[in-house]
Amino acid sequence: MRERLSSDTYIDGILAGDRVILSRAITVVESRLAEDKLLAQAILNGILPQTGRSLRIGITGIPGVGKSTFIEALGIYLTSINKKVAVLAVDPTSSKSAGSILGDKTRMEELVKDPLAFIRPSATGLSLGGVARNTREAMLLCEAAGYEVILIETVGVGQSEIFVKGMTDFFLLLALPGAGDELQGIKKGIVEMADAVVVNKADGLFADEAAQAAATFENALHLAQAGESGVAVKVLTCSALENRGIPEVWETVQQYVATTVKNGFFSKNRAAQQVDWMHEIVRQKLEDLFYQNKEVKKQLHGIEEEVGAGKMLPAEAAQLLLNLLFKI
Amino acid sequence: MRERLSSDTYIDGILAGDRVILSRAITVVESRLAEDKLLAQAILNGILPQTGRSLRIGITGIPGVGKSTFIEALGIYLTSINKKVAVLAVDPTSSKSAGSILGDKTRMEELVKDPLAFIRPSATGLSLGGVARNTREAMLLCEAAGYEVILIETVGVGQSEIFVKGMTDFFLLLALPGAGDELQGIKKGIVEMADAVVVNKADGLFADEAAQAAATFENALHLAQAGESGVAVKVLTCSALENRGIPEVWETVQQYVATTVKNGFFSKNRAAQQVDWMHEIVRQKLEDLFYQNKEVKKQLHGIEEEVGAGKMLPAEAAQLLLNLLFKI
Repeated sequence: MRERLSSDTYIDGILAGDRVILSRAITVVESRLAEDKLLAQAILNGILPQTGRSLRIGITGIPGVGKSTFIEALGIYLTSINKKVAVLAVDPTSSKSAGSILGDKTRMEELVKDPLAFIRPSATGLSLGGVARNTREAMLLCEAAGYEVILIETVGVGQSEIFVKGMTDFFLLLALPGAGDELQGIKKGIVEMADAVVVNKADGLFADEAAQAAATFENALHLAQAGESGVAVKVLTCSALENRGIPEVWETVQQYVATTVKNGFFSKNRAAQQVDWMHEIVRQKLEDLFYQNKEVKKQLHGIEEEVGAGKMLPAEAAQLLLNLLFKI
Repeated sequence: MRERLSSDTYIDGILAGDRVILSRAITVVESRLAEDKLLAQAILNGILPQTGRSLRIGITGIPGVGKSTFIEALGIYLTSINKKVAVLAVDPTSSKSAGSILGDKTRMEELVKDPLAFIRPSATGLSLGGVARNTREAMLLCEAAGYEVILIETVGVGQSEIFVKGMTDFFLLLALPGAGDELQGIKKGIVEMADAVVVNKADGLFADEAAQAAATFENALHLAQAGESGVAVKVLTCSALENRGIPEVWETVQQYVATTVKNGFFSKNRAAQQVDWMHEIVRQKLEDLFYQNKEVKKQLHGIEEEVGAGKMLPAEAAQLLLNLLFKI
């Protein structure tokens, strides 16, 4: 067992850009132990004034689209122009499978060795909400450690994308050439969340198909309403494998930031995200208060047994437990 | 505006198998109006003794795998052997896109006309948790109306599958021939949730590829640990389009049920689902109590503004609001 560091040691280490301390601090934030929770809160409070200065980019796309290769190519490009880059993930499925995409050590082999890059796989064994909360806090720690661009990867179609959209400034949908509309998320509402669509694997035989897929997206987006950001969604093609089109992606992100900072959307969006986050904390704390309540703790097991045996309805049991919490 | 029916009228209509009343009752359950919530509770309490007797089947698979065609083929097969079938969906993405898969009126054209079948698209405009809760309650209403098999469709990779797994007796993963491992959910932990994998589109030119995909799944499952159910996960091929392999799917489901009823897992699983549901209700009620609290209502807007303006940290604001709720 490693010795327990003080919150000040963590804070100083993070602010000095110490990657080992940063890693350990993220582990503290991910911990479910009560004493770690207090420590995590102290660390987060200490580093908060130094957060919020990075650019936060969410990246999504169906499995097989080449997210890891794309993120590595973008990461390497960014470090080549001297940006410090952190890669995080919201991958709720990693709790059940052998390992998350980022946990797979064969991925991002080059970026992992880059001194300007920091890669952290998704926490495991948590609910999606828990993973999202941890990722948000890990993002703040990375920002305090001086990382200027945070890339947050997410998987598949669904709630995890909504979480990542809710903690980033720019949301990028990675797509495949040739796959059907449905597969691309056009019908799934993901496109409507995106600030840019990038058709990956635009190489070799797929170059034509990639151009065609890009045209399909252009059409679909043309029909969609203009987004709140006031910036038209851009459709690009790239080959992460052949490392082409990556600077153009970064250029698009920068243009977006310039425009939205100017028109006020950038800060408006971050403000709304803060408010949403407050509600998320309220939800979490309500649950904590409930399940840590002495009376609830004492009776929960017996009531669960009655519900499981079909002797009490779930709704009745829930009310009974809530009455315990709120009785004076 | 339709006239408001009494809860007894709903209950009697549902128990008599009246499809129009059933439809309207589901709308009541989905409603967010306070008066509808009371009515919904009264209806659900009234029909509860008549629930739990159907077989609940969850069906998942990536977009493009042919879920609607498969569900229609399975549904038609089941009504042909005189089973009453209800089709529901947990589709959180339908809130943002033009319509859910089931909402698309061009789908399931035949099944929709079948007098033994009842099809209900996913509710829109709700969080995933809300959609899941509504679907669970709609399922109970369908059971009380005499539907013997409930097919619950879900989309994509992620939390919605966990919800559907948590409300069904049998979870079926529909897969494509030829697509890569990653696309199939092998690496995403979805396979580990499945009680059967069915490779669809095993027709014409794809027959060989389908057999190959099935072999890949067999291998992947061979390496996985035996499930809690005590039944080995079966891998099948079918063609929903050509209507082949469907009776075999049903046979597999029935064998699973026979074995798990015998070894006790069937009822153990349902008991655990009831307990999970109780916790879900607790979470929901805690939120309701909080946001309906008079003091919280009064101060929420001002506090949100401070958080949005960066004058208060989300965690501080959350604590302040919670103190309002718990002060005596």
